[in-house]
Amino acid sequence: MTQPTCPTAVASRCAQCVLRRHPPLHGLHSTHKDTHTQAKLKNVHSVLAYEYAWMHGCTRKLGMKICALFPLTLPSHFLDLLPAKNGEEPTIQFLLEVVEILTNYIKKTFDRSTKVLDFHHPHQLLEGMEGFNLELSDQPESLEQILVDCRDTLKYGIRTGHPRFFNQLSSGLDIIGLAGEWLTSTANTNMFTYEIAPVFVLMEQLTLKKMREMIGWPGGEGDGLFSPGGAISNMYSVMMARYKYFPEVKTKGMSAAPRLVLFTSEHSHYSIKKAGAALGFGTDNVILLSTDERGRVIPADLEAKIIAAKQKGYVPLFVNATAGSTVYGAFDPINEIADICEKYNLWLHVDGAWGGGLLMSRKHRHKLNGVERANSVTWNPHKMMGVPLQCSAILVREKGILAGCNSMCAGYLFQPDKQYDVTYDTGDKAIQCGRHVDIFKFWLMWKAKGTIGFEQHIDKCLDLSQYLYNKIKNREGFQMVFDGVPQHTNVCFWYIPPSLRGMPDSNEWREKLHRVAPKIKAMMMESGTTMVGYQPQGNKVNFFRMVVSNAAATQSDIDFLIDEIERMGQDL
Amino acid sequence: MTQPTCPTAVASRCAQCVLRRHPPLHGLHSTHKDTHTQAKLKNVHSVLAYEYAWMHGCTRKLGMKICALFPLTLPSHFLDLLPAKNGEEPTIQFLLEVVEILTNYIKKTFDRSTKVLDFHHPHQLLEGMEGFNLELSDQPESLEQILVDCRDTLKYGIRTGHPRFFNQLSSGLDIIGLAGEWLTSTANTNMFTYEIAPVFVLMEQLTLKKMREMIGWPGGEGDGLFSPGGAISNMYSVMMARYKYFPEVKTKGMSAAPRLVLFTSEHSHYSIKKAGAALGFGTDNVILLSTDERGRVIPADLEAKIIAAKQKGYVPLFVNATAGSTVYGAFDPINEIADICEKYNLWLHVDGAWGGGLLMSRKHRHKLNGVERANSVTWNPHKMMGVPLQCSAILVREKGILAGCNSMCAGYLFQPDKQYDVTYDTGDKAIQCGRHVDIFKFWLMWKAKGTIGFEQHIDKCLDLSQYLYNKIKNREGFQMVFDGVPQHTNVCFWYIPPSLRGMPDSNEWREKLHRVAPKIKAMMMESGTTMVGYQPQGNKVNFFRMVVSNAAATQSDIDFLIDEIERMGQDL
Repeated sequence: MTQPTCPTAVASRCAQCVLRRHPPLHGLHSTHKDTHTQAKLKNVHSVLAYEYAWMHGCTRKLGMKICALFPLTLPSHFLDLLPAKNGEEPTIQFLLEVVEILTNYIKKTFDRSTKVLDFHHPHQLLEGMEGFNLELSDQPESLEQILVDCRDTLKYGIRTGHPRFFNQLSSGLDIIGLAGEWLTSTANTNMFTYEIAPVFVLMEQLTLKKMREMIGWPGGEGDGLFSPGGAISNMYSVMMARYKYFPEVKTKGMSAAPRLVLFTSEHSHYSIKKAGAALGFGTDNVILLSTDERGRVIPADLEAKIIAAKQKGYVPLFVNATAGSTVYGAFDPINEIADICEKYNLWLHVDGAWGGGLLMSRKHRHKLNGVERANSVTWNPHKMMGVPLQCSAILVREKGILAGCNSMCAGYLFQPDKQYDVTYDTGDKAIQCGRHVDIFKFWLMWKAKGTIGFEQHIDKCLDLSQYLYNKIKNREGFQMVFDGVPQHTNVCFWYIPPSLRGMPDSNEWREKLHRVAPKIKAMMMESGTTMVGYQPQGNKVNFFRMVVSNAAATQSDIDFLIDEIERMGQDL
Repeated sequence: MTQPTCPTAVASRCAQCVLRRHPPLHGLHSTHKDTHTQAKLKNVHSVLAYEYAWMHGCTRKLGMKICALFPLTLPSHFLDLLPAKNGEEPTIQFLLEVVEILTNYIKKTFDRSTKVLDFHHPHQLLEGMEGFNLELSDQPESLEQILVDCRDTLKYGIRTGHPRFFNQLSSGLDIIGLAGEWLTSTANTNMFTYEIAPVFVLMEQLTLKKMREMIGWPGGEGDGLFSPGGAISNMYSVMMARYKYFPEVKTKGMSAAPRLVLFTSEHSHYSIKKAGAALGFGTDNVILLSTDERGRVIPADLEAKIIAAKQKGYVPLFVNATAGSTVYGAFDPINEIADICEKYNLWLHVDGAWGGGLLMSRKHRHKLNGVERANSVTWNPHKMMGVPLQCSAILVREKGILAGCNSMCAGYLFQPDKQYDVTYDTGDKAIQCGRHVDIFKFWLMWKAKGTIGFEQHIDKCLDLSQYLYNKIKNREGFQMVFDGVPQHTNVCFWYIPPSLRGMPDSNEWREKLHRVAPKIKAMMMESGTTMVGYQPQGNKVNFFRMVVSNAAATQSDIDFLIDEIERMGQDL
């Protein structure tokens, strides 16, 4: 059956049409124009929907069918929903309407003919788009308007699951993970005790053990938690290091310790500095380590800086080695760093927020060689492994230190006289009290894919990056930020427009080049075709950082990105 | 049409039956026993499902209809799903199967004949329940097994939305909020920049402004963030106080400041102590304030302790006033505390994680009188306002301090040369990098209910608590922990079994009473009928703490709780 397009502009604006997602209604919308009252429309549409349903009972357009086959008595008000008496049917009806919006969004997100975004400036959205008003009010809105709000929220947002969204380390939309999140929010519980999250607490324990096994700690022994992101996970590592060497700081504060210093690469994530500031070390005591041209820490520089700090009377405490740096995707040489940490008795943390996922790949895990010597590891499944946001683990080799560091034994939560084994009440290890259930989606994805499914995903993403690298390394108008095959999926490059090619390097030239990436990025966002990140680094002017973690991306999307950059940049 | 029950045990165990949620299949399950191969069953069931669908096309059992009307070719493997070629239909089919599991769960959760939980000890779940194995493996599972896993995860979990779940400050399952979470996870983005979360960033700004208006800060001016829970929100408040008075700590560490002390009630939440430990103050420098018999801070004690600290040469920095304490639901006298803070130039934080919601109620907001004088406020909509977990705001009166305290200006995220107004890139204010989208569900609920909807919910919960209080205050066998009408929904009481009534107070008697609440709680969990918290407090032995935040709870549920306690406790 062909699908006639809607004959009037009204059709696309009519709440009834939009809600029911009718197939175009054979010219009937012209009537709406004349009789545009909600009640009449509701009636017309209900009848039409029923007819349509019977007519197309066998069509394979599933999403459409759900809507079409119901009596379409959308509840009008939140008070109709559960826990209202007789609220069951309106609740299911409402949720199914929402699910239809979401499944339509999902279908479009994976369709390359859909834009990645429909860009608007903040003031435009704040002023209110047609029918979409962000302001809150004293009075309730109808559920029909709520559904319109849902649709508009998605419409003006960013499709991070789109095959051509390359803007962040987290991208893609895993369907199993998504189902896991829907279940998690339906269960609506909290990780602090076994009492109210028995299954999730056990899933967390088993999954963390599995991750520790992959790190290589004997028997998967140790401890850990899922935390609200890599920055908090890294913060935990600094807290544990401090507790290990200066446990009295917990009660007496930093004044009980000497001047402690932390070491991390100049290419490392800014969260190490944030932790230094928050935990009372001070950012001056976060010493940045020099890196080679690929962004990897130079171990000799670490040792020299440790010695220099000691000579000043400071006490080196903690070294962060990055496994997969944010911009270059660099892997610090963990074994060499571990040798130095052992020599000087320092806590070694590996920030594998981005690179930890490579432990799942037999082909690439060697890049983290030595990680088994770390005292603690950050590993964010929500990045390279495609788990929905948020999912970040802090893992620690020594048992007991996480609890020692954080426990306060609150009587109202962690009663010792419960009827079950209360060692499963893990909440007191956290700096949080309530803790979101981040484990289920990850556990479910692991079940569905198996370790080998994650491995395939990671290998494929790294292959794609190498494909990009091979395509642009000698291409006219492209210049790599550093030489050699990328260690991770990060590919960093400048695009040099024709007007800037073949010219001698000068401050003026560099200033011009600095403006190229932001201009192209702005054009990308305004046209909505693709998104990729850029930034300066050290004395290097703005360059593009391409990353691939999206399972939907293919070589054709990489080709598309290159073409878009060339198309948008050619006249700059 | 009557629904014949399933004639064989096989029916309920057959994956095909379970997945398709057939109505009982007219005795056909006996055949399954004999021909129990997946392939054959799949065939039989597909045919049956089709027949059933046509037969019952007009039934109003919506959930059943979805399933019954599809061709029921469930995808077999995660590789069938998007982004697979032709993955659209299997994806929708799979998600609808998940939604059916979830909507069935929701319906049962609100049904009082369903148990709140089906209790199992950790070792039982770890050993594996029939068909439910928590272990992860190298190989993928079929999607049918994934659906079984989803169902079992819910089966062995806790129904926190059940009308008789009173165990935590967060309870209930708001359908609009749930829809909001489903959308949030489908959008799968991150709050750090306007670039990738334009709508959510603006919703957060508008909602925080609205909350600041309700606090009473002129024009709703100030700043804020949604954080991963009240403990982190409280931690922010301490960090901001430190930055306000000793900004050099950010770069130089705690050694740049004198010995700083924090003040908080002995009844306050343990997160203030956790913050003291984490941020380098030390728990010894978190001074606990004495309270009256209702658990409210005694202002004179605060002033005396400030003076004593100063005499020792310490520097008082920060006072936390609790608006709604965790156990008693007490509201500290904010105005009197604010007077003292002004006199001694201290940062005043109000921890309204639990009680902040009362600001929405014209009847109850007076309990927070003086909150407009606070420098910062924690307010968790995921508690009293019934927003799904997690949703916690830290609000601050002074603009700029949150950014001053936390910003590190990471070049790869917060480029100054973007095409839009980058003051909307709010991520650098946070101690997190990636930050989960906690705003949408709350914004959507506010849209759907209006301020007056929240007000009605809060007034109703407080009425219910007063109903409970009135019922038990003079009831035989019940003894209140403190006298007078509760300030919040917390009602604290002992149940005294007949065997302990009318006896003189003694250590032995108190030891016996101490064991009563845990025993009744264990019975509740094992029978699964209801859940309510208990704990000791100071020198008071274990007592029940009843709280109401669940919109589904009614007087009959309160009656039920009292009956259950009496029934379970009568022979102790």
